[in-house]
Order: sequence, then C-alpha cells, then structure tokens
Amino acid sequence: MQTRMQALHEYMNERSMDALLVTLPAHVFYLTGFRSNPHERFLGLVLVKGESPFLLVPAIDLEAAQAAAKQIPHIYTHADTDNPYEVLSKLLPSKLSKFGLEKSHLTVSRFEALSAAADAQAYVDIDEVLRSMRVIKSPSEIVMMRRAVRMIEDVLHAGIAHVKPGVSELDLVAELDYRMKKLGADCPSFDTMVLAGEKSALPHGIPGDRKVQSGELLLFDLGVYVDGYASDITRTFAVGDVNDKLKEIYETVLSANLKAIEAIRPGATLASIDRAARDTIAAKGYGDYFMHRLGHGLGLDVHEYPSVHGQNEERLAAGMAFTVEPGVYVAGLGGVRIEDDVIVTEDGVEVLTAFPKELTVIG
Amino acid sequence: MQTRMQALHEYMNERSMDALLVTLPAHVFYLTGFRSNPHERFLGLVLVKGESPFLLVPAIDLEAAQAAAKQIPHIYTHADTDNPYEVLSKLLPSKLSKFGLEKSHLTVSRFEALSAAADAQAYVDIDEVLRSMRVIKSPSEIVMMRRAVRMIEDVLHAGIAHVKPGVSELDLVAELDYRMKKLGADCPSFDTMVLAGEKSALPHGIPGDRKVQSGELLLFDLGVYVDGYASDITRTFAVGDVNDKLKEIYETVLSANLKAIEAIRPGATLASIDRAARDTIAAKGYGDYFMHRLGHGLGLDVHEYPSVHGQNEERLAAGMAFTVEPGVYVAGLGGVRIEDDVIVTEDGVEVLTAFPKELTVIG
Repeated sequence: MQTRMQALHEYMNERSMDALLVTLPAHVFYLTGFRSNPHERFLGLVLVKGESPFLLVPAIDLEAAQAAAKQIPHIYTHADTDNPYEVLSKLLPSKLSKFGLEKSHLTVSRFEALSAAADAQAYVDIDEVLRSMRVIKSPSEIVMMRRAVRMIEDVLHAGIAHVKPGVSELDLVAELDYRMKKLGADCPSFDTMVLAGEKSALPHGIPGDRKVQSGELLLFDLGVYVDGYASDITRTFAVGDVNDKLKEIYETVLSANLKAIEAIRPGATLASIDRAARDTIAAKGYGDYFMHRLGHGLGLDVHEYPSVHGQNEERLAAGMAFTVEPGVYVAGLGGVRIEDDVIVTEDGVEVLTAFPKELTVIG
Repeated sequence: MQTRMQALHEYMNERSMDALLVTLPAHVFYLTGFRSNPHERFLGLVLVKGESPFLLVPAIDLEAAQAAAKQIPHIYTHADTDNPYEVLSKLLPSKLSKFGLEKSHLTVSRFEALSAAADAQAYVDIDEVLRSMRVIKSPSEIVMMRRAVRMIEDVLHAGIAHVKPGVSELDLVAELDYRMKKLGADCPSFDTMVLAGEKSALPHGIPGDRKVQSGELLLFDLGVYVDGYASDITRTFAVGDVNDKLKEIYETVLSANLKAIEAIRPGATLASIDRAARDTIAAKGYGDYFMHRLGHGLGLDVHEYPSVHGQNEERLAAGMAFTVEPGVYVAGLGGVRIEDDVIVTEDGVEVLTAFPKELTVIG
C-alpha cells in the first residue's frame, strides 16, 4: 500500500496537482487498507503536495480506520451534524491551483459542496491513474483472489451434490447462496445463475422453477466477494447422458477456452486472446452462436477494466487479471459456457480456477 | 403518470427552466412506467418547455420502452458506438438558459459530457421536486406496496414453519431468500436478518451459524422489492417459553408500536410519532435501550424520505408511507423490534402489515 500511495503522489506531482481527493470506498481500501461502507456519509483520503496524507472519516468509523489504515499518519473525523466539506476545507491549504477528483464517482451535488468549501482554480479527473494502478494486481492481491476463487469452487462442489432430476434451478441457487454465507463470503459477486436444459442457451437467463431433467445440460455461473476481492466461475454439466450434438458443443467451447488460455502471455493483445477462442469456435461452425466478448477484468470489482474483446488492442502485462469465458448458445437446444479466472504471469498465465473442465455427468 | 408529468412540467415553468433531464432509473420508472437497469449506458427522460417530452434509451431497450412508456410520444435511441450526449444535444433546443438535472445522482463526468454537448447557461437541481412528489403515494402505488407487503408476509409465514431448536440463523435466511425468489420478488429489499437469542440485541447484527435454542427470542427483519416497490417488516418470536423479563420487553415494544400508530394522522408531526413510541418505552424504564429512530420512508426505495425521528417537525399528509419500528435491545439478554409499514390516510392510518403482533411461540 505504501507503493500505491507513492505512485499516486508521483502522479500528482507529474500533473502539477496541489491536492487530490479519493472517495470511492474501494479506492480508499486499495490505498489505505481501510474497508468501509460510509453510505451517505463522507469518507475521503486526501493527498496534499509536500505534506503527509490524511483520512477524513465519519466519527463512528474512527476506531476501525485507525486499526486498518496504519500507514496513514493523520485520521480526522466529522460528526453527523458537521458539514464534512467545511471540515475538509480547514484541513486543506488555503489556495489550490489543481485539485484531483474521481469524476466518474463524485456526484454533481457533492462536487458543488466541495468546490464551495475548497479554494481551487481547477478540478481534474484522477480515475485513469487509479484504473491503471488497479489493472496490475500485486502478489498480495493475487493471494486474495486465489482465496475468493477457492471459496467459490468449494461452493460449486457442494452445490452440484444437490443436483438430481426434479430439483429446480431456484432450489440450487438457494443452496449455493446459503453455502457462500456459511463459508464466510462478503456476498455473492452477482446474482447466482443456474440454468437448465434449453434455458442454458440464454446468456442472461434468470433462474426459476424450471426443473433439472436427465439428458440435459445444466449451467452454473457464480462468484463471491471475499474480503473485498471477487471471483467468477462458470461450469456446464451433463445431467445423465446427453446427446452427441450437446457433447460436440461442449468440446467446441472447451477447446476455445483452452486455446484462449494458451495464447495468454505478456505482450499479447487482449484482442488476440478473444480471437484465439472465437476462431476455434468458428472453425467448428458455431461462430454465430458465440455472441459476447471473451471476458472482463476481475479484482475489487467483479467487472472491471480491461474488457477482453476483439477490438481491444491493449497488450497484456504481468499481474493483469480477467475472465476467459467462451460460450456457444443454440436457442431451443442448450448452451455451454466455461469460464476461468486467470492472472498474467511473467512468462505466461496462472489459471486461478482449478475446477475440472472435462464434460462431467452429475445428478 | 400523466399527473406526475404535468406536475413536473409546472415545476419547470414556475422555475423558468427551459428543459429538464431525468436519468435516475427509479425516477424514469416513476414518471413513464418504463423500468430498466441501463447499467453504464445512458437513459434519460427529457422535458422541454412548450414541447412534448421524450425518452432517449439504449437501442436494445427500444421495444421495452415503447411497450411500457405509452404516454411518452417520442422515444429515441442511441447505439453503443454513439456519444449519447451528442445524440441528446441534437434533440434539445440550440440555446437554453436554465437546465434542470438530478445533481445528487449525476456524476461529474456525466455532467461534463452533458454540459459540453448541451448549450445551457445554468444547471439547476431538480432532486427536491421529485422527492416531494414521491413522498405522497398515489392509490396505484399503494396497491403496489400492499402487494410487496403481502409477499413478505407470505415469506415470513413460510419461514417460521422451519424454526426449531438446532436450526441456524443462516439456515433460516436461506429458506426466506429462497421463498422470496419462488414467489417472484424482484430481490430482497436488504440483507435478510435472522438473529437468535442474545444476538437479537444487535440492531445491525449479521446472521451466522448461531443456532436457535428454546427459551430465547428470535428476530426476523426482511423485505422484498416487487415490481419496483419495497416492503420491510420485523417480527420477534419466542422459541418455546421465554422468561418474564423478555416478555416484559416484548410487551413494552408492542405498546410503543401501537401508541405510535395511534398517533398517525394528517397534520401530526413526524417527531410526535417518534415521541409517542419513545415515551411509552421510557415510561417502562427502557428509554436507554431504544437507540435508533422510529422509522424511515418506504416506496421505490426501501429507505427513502422522510426520516421518522424526534427532530423532524415536518407534518404528515395523506399518502405518506413509512415504517414504524420501535425496539428495545438489552445487551447479553436479547432484543425485540416490531416493525410495521404504514400509509397516512385522509383521517388516520392504514397499516399495510397484517402479520400478528402478539407474542407468539414458535419452534
């Protein structure tokens, strides 16, 4: 975290900013180790040129902030009866030329309250620097992501033990969500998805009363946040024996998943990874049935930068984390998606998800 | 909805605004009937002085918007490759003096994109008018709220049937959340809370492995969104026989709940409702054990305007909807909260929640 604060200080100096305010709770956590949900209350990390950084937190959060943000030398508080922007203005130098803010997070009301209290000539956006810092995961973040992945794999293992013909999609969702809570997840990282039979062909289907039947596919897409970090996995199973067409679709998606993962290494473009999967699927004649991007960045948010699609010519670098999730969806018949979470390493890739990928019969 | 649009038009004219943009999805739903989650995409309802209102929606939402927003004469679309603010600027008059916006919702980035594209001299806040419209529920909204309440009561009835010594708080949460989905709720309106024994004394406790035991209290606090409207109910039960102290606490909270409801009528202040409950609890010697406000507004959000506390001298009016939820929490022993959802009527109050309130033994 010291490194992150230092990088932010350097960015501030390079851009000739006098001060910089971070209010997105995920960013405050990322930079200080203090994780909180301030709801409507003000929470801010402030960097001022040539001074030591400080936190301004709601009074009720002081103890928690002190315990977590050990490297922030000053932690100030505001009471519910205070105007936090006035408290903040007294802690800032009297004249500022350039003040950095998270413009994609701060609302206009909050910005107006801040600019009425702070004495700055210009307000500039700092979203990009935080995004570019977050895109490269540190070794300690990778440890956190491995934990989130391990937990969701435990959840999935426990969940598939409940599969049998007659159980409904929602029965399985309830079981999976229950298991997440039991294992100590912060929360699901998105609405748990279980889709049976022809419903597995809906990339954004909603689980319902549809019952699992033998001879069909069953798709699970689920994730958890654990201590702030997200996981996200999809596996598709055969309930009993499935026909050759479904097996062919499965093998097509599996080889696309493997080809994409094979292509991951520092220097390759995101577009080339997407293409590796897409070409494999197209070669088997299913090109029109894979109608979404290959994946998305993963970390403090379950969907974050970068986007893994065919137009993204950005190059991979060690520490990038994202999902690889090709799919083939044939309306009325069924769909297969196989999703892994990966980290780019110095010489290739670490696949965080270890759940078996061969077509597995359950139920 | 025509009435709401008309009220907004009148507000715009009174304040001499040329145009007004509504982007909060709940507000677009409230004013047009079109409910959607545009995620990162632009969604806006636009009113222009002297012209008919229009919607600008993502292209993929066109059909859904046309089906739902029947009274909006023009629905325009933008593609993912468009800059939606440029599309919007072409639909607006070329020069505007005052442009109304939701400043508590719009981010600075979006505001900058908008103000770069729109040609307005001043931007003013419209949050207050929407808040004051939403605080008075229409008959059709009350119908929606009754549905959301009926559903959560069905969920609670089904849930308590699973209570027996040895079942855990999380087992019951899983059962309740499952039932919500089965009955067709949009989602829980907040994290379902089940707290057993001494944990019921924690107003913000988190359900865990704690098992239900005979002779203890068991507190349930839960709600659902149904077609956009929220419910929120708390009931506290006795698992087997509980001691006289716990019974006394229960009766104290119940009489506070009843006294507060008795005090509700148009013209009474919100503070007086809070006081009716607080005085009842203080008279029994538990004043220090009721340490939160009496309730909160309820409607399109599970927590909305107004706040029901001892300093709110605003007066009740027919159509206001809020919760009445006094509680007494004795650390180490247990807590009781009894929460109803109410609507102020022309001559008193309608209590939406009908779930029995006498101390009930379950398990």
